[in-house]
Amino acid sequence: MGEPLSTKPPSGFRDFFGSEARRRALLVRRISEIYESFGFDPLETSAIENIETLVGSGGGDNEKLIFKIMKRGDKLKESLENMPTENTLTDLGLRFDLTVPLARVVAEYQSQIKSPWKVYHAAPVWRAERAQKGRFREFFQCDVDIIGSTSTAAEVEVIQAVVTAASSLAGPDFELRINDRRLMRALAESLGFVGDKADSFAIILDKKDKVDFQKLRMEWQGLLGSALPSEIDRLQLSSQNLEDYRSIHPEAVDGLCRIVSLLEALNLPLKGISFDPSLARGLGYYSGPVFELRHQSAGYSLGGGGRYDHLIGRFLKKSVPAVGFSIGFERLLLLMAEKEALVKAPRAEVFVAVVSEDLRPQVLRLASVLRSSGLQVSVYPGEGKLKSQLKYASDLSFRWVLILGEDEFRSSVAIVKDFASGGEERVAFSDLQRFLRVEK
Amino acid sequence: MGEPLSTKPPSGFRDFFGSEARRRALLVRRISEIYESFGFDPLETSAIENIETLVGSGGGDNEKLIFKIMKRGDKLKESLENMPTENTLTDLGLRFDLTVPLARVVAEYQSQIKSPWKVYHAAPVWRAERAQKGRFREFFQCDVDIIGSTSTAAEVEVIQAVVTAASSLAGPDFELRINDRRLMRALAESLGFVGDKADSFAIILDKKDKVDFQKLRMEWQGLLGSALPSEIDRLQLSSQNLEDYRSIHPEAVDGLCRIVSLLEALNLPLKGISFDPSLARGLGYYSGPVFELRHQSAGYSLGGGGRYDHLIGRFLKKSVPAVGFSIGFERLLLLMAEKEALVKAPRAEVFVAVVSEDLRPQVLRLASVLRSSGLQVSVYPGEGKLKSQLKYASDLSFRWVLILGEDEFRSSVAIVKDFASGGEERVAFSDLQRFLRVEK
Repeated sequence: MGEPLSTKPPSGFRDFFGSEARRRALLVRRISEIYESFGFDPLETSAIENIETLVGSGGGDNEKLIFKIMKRGDKLKESLENMPTENTLTDLGLRFDLTVPLARVVAEYQSQIKSPWKVYHAAPVWRAERAQKGRFREFFQCDVDIIGSTSTAAEVEVIQAVVTAASSLAGPDFELRINDRRLMRALAESLGFVGDKADSFAIILDKKDKVDFQKLRMEWQGLLGSALPSEIDRLQLSSQNLEDYRSIHPEAVDGLCRIVSLLEALNLPLKGISFDPSLARGLGYYSGPVFELRHQSAGYSLGGGGRYDHLIGRFLKKSVPAVGFSIGFERLLLLMAEKEALVKAPRAEVFVAVVSEDLRPQVLRLASVLRSSGLQVSVYPGEGKLKSQLKYASDLSFRWVLILGEDEFRSSVAIVKDFASGGEERVAFSDLQRFLRVEK
Repeated sequence: MGEPLSTKPPSGFRDFFGSEARRRALLVRRISEIYESFGFDPLETSAIENIETLVGSGGGDNEKLIFKIMKRGDKLKESLENMPTENTLTDLGLRFDLTVPLARVVAEYQSQIKSPWKVYHAAPVWRAERAQKGRFREFFQCDVDIIGSTSTAAEVEVIQAVVTAASSLAGPDFELRINDRRLMRALAESLGFVGDKADSFAIILDKKDKVDFQKLRMEWQGLLGSALPSEIDRLQLSSQNLEDYRSIHPEAVDGLCRIVSLLEALNLPLKGISFDPSLARGLGYYSGPVFELRHQSAGYSLGGGGRYDHLIGRFLKKSVPAVGFSIGFERLLLLMAEKEALVKAPRAEVFVAVVSEDLRPQVLRLASVLRSSGLQVSVYPGEGKLKSQLKYASDLSFRWVLILGEDEFRSSVAIVKDFASGGEERVAFSDLQRFLRVEK
């Protein structure tokens, strides 16, 4: 056998089992059901993309974090023989988000897709981040997107779906912030930051809540290379009144007003909706409204999104309007773990002990009957003493245990132990389904 | 913008959307629910494993098909500078099955896992197969496993769970074949094939149904390097009576008898259960009973499994008994597509047209109320003429369309179009939930 192999997952990766895996599976199922209730269709794309798709996608910093897959067979051999470099050795990579694959899919299948397309995508993504506490290299994302609508109704729809999902899972204490990239860019330009500098200006402004304003000023000064205009100090106050910004970009302000007023009319389970002129959202591809969901008790964003009308155009000769909202699945899980009561991750309900192997056929048949009424029923899959089977059922937190010996099959009456009350009852086989359902 | 990027998925990979994606999502959900109804717990492992975990795992031919991930940053730089080879350039790889990660997880978390552990794992795996029609490089697997039980009850339990899932999804026309690796090895040894040659003997015998017996004889002759014993011709008849093999390996025959008689007592929805002395199942790690599920109308296996008591020992200093059964998700889907009636992949049920943007807040609120009663309700997320909205609803095969104009909100009565009958009715708001539920 030799030396045993290492049993750890690779650094930055995780395994889930037991109640944690149940909670994750339940969460994906709930989110999917909610998105489907809004009429969003599922999408499934391959984990692996051509490397060119990922590298040319406008994914900003995430492009630096691609896990690259080595060429295989003769192609690898050829690359190895000709002064190999990182680029010549790889042809594929793992997706770093779900938006780039969606954009590719829209471009590839445009003739089959009815516009506007309402679509959701719940799947893992991979980023080769430096491994550190609380930062993972594989994590789940749940995106909703509407492709092909220029109307602000699309922004409202994705926000409504995400807020409904998040609040139904972790309570109503969420706050929504919105802004518009065009407004931010116009603001930057009005202060003298033009071209690429407008984006850098925005990324600095985005840190306003975390960093001292004098530090921001120094960063801007460095970026501009000349004295800052005095108007820049007004950013410190950063009025949250949309009307104060109308003159800078009237169209963007109109759109934000429509979105906010529709959301307010919907009376969503939210703590508040606020306009935040410093909100940038990191990714390069946003082109209009951007939004972010925060939770009162968490110091971080639980999801974000916005309009990205030009991303699909990288794959097509024409541009296609698009809006998306990505929920931070792992962070939502953390929040749910804190509020355990809100989402239970129940294990199978009924445990059936096997007193004698001769009785196993009858035990298995009875278990099948109970299952057909919707109960979860786990039969002990080994041969062990009754005492150790009961300990097993208790360790695994089953509520109910059925004990079925020869006497019980002769009389068609089961012994039912209730681990919640510590009690024990005799229940006729014909009454078991009703008893186990009612007594929950 | 430059040249548009390619929009195809990489060769051998696929995208799913529309009814195909709905069918896939539904299938994963159904299989998971059935496995949970048996008390199997979900497991989620990372897609990426350390390369040593994959290479030393006993995965047989699949080890040659690993997608290898390049090292990153300084480590990559160092490897590139020192006469790089395939091995020095990679540190991670994508899993090629779900059994190797499971074995690693059992070894890593043994102190937290209650034995016997009933676990299921539904996730994609990746194999760098030569791309060709009908063969994919990313595909879903659904495994059930029981870890820590030496009893044949474990074999029966995983077979019952898989047969229940497969038959509930694609009808009762499945056939189960079983054999035992120990029996096959003893058979090989009795014919003079010892050591590694016993495994090669088995792999040749496994082809019996597809290849002429004289060809098999020639392969065996080449393998043995001497004249074949005359008993080998008895394999051509291959009795399916277990008792004929008792003298070769009594313990294996006893176990198979117990498994078959328990399965027969369960009266599973199966066409038949048969002993097949030529069944090998490809993978290297099986150590006892092996089984395979076939469907009457399909010329291929729909899943297979067996006992692998020594695999986990590669990660631990002790061996741990284990039984697993993997269902061929993609092939099951093909079978379901042929029997479309058996599994519907319904789209959202109700479409709501938006006649005027002024009415959108009220429309969205009414849609929320309908959703809360469990209906799937899709509101048009753009601004368009009623006629084009109705065409959209029809193209997407919605059954019901609600039309809500000013008159309708004034009178609290909706116009409901039924695309199934072509009819149209006026239904009071207060009666909509009942109407749309009853009329389905």
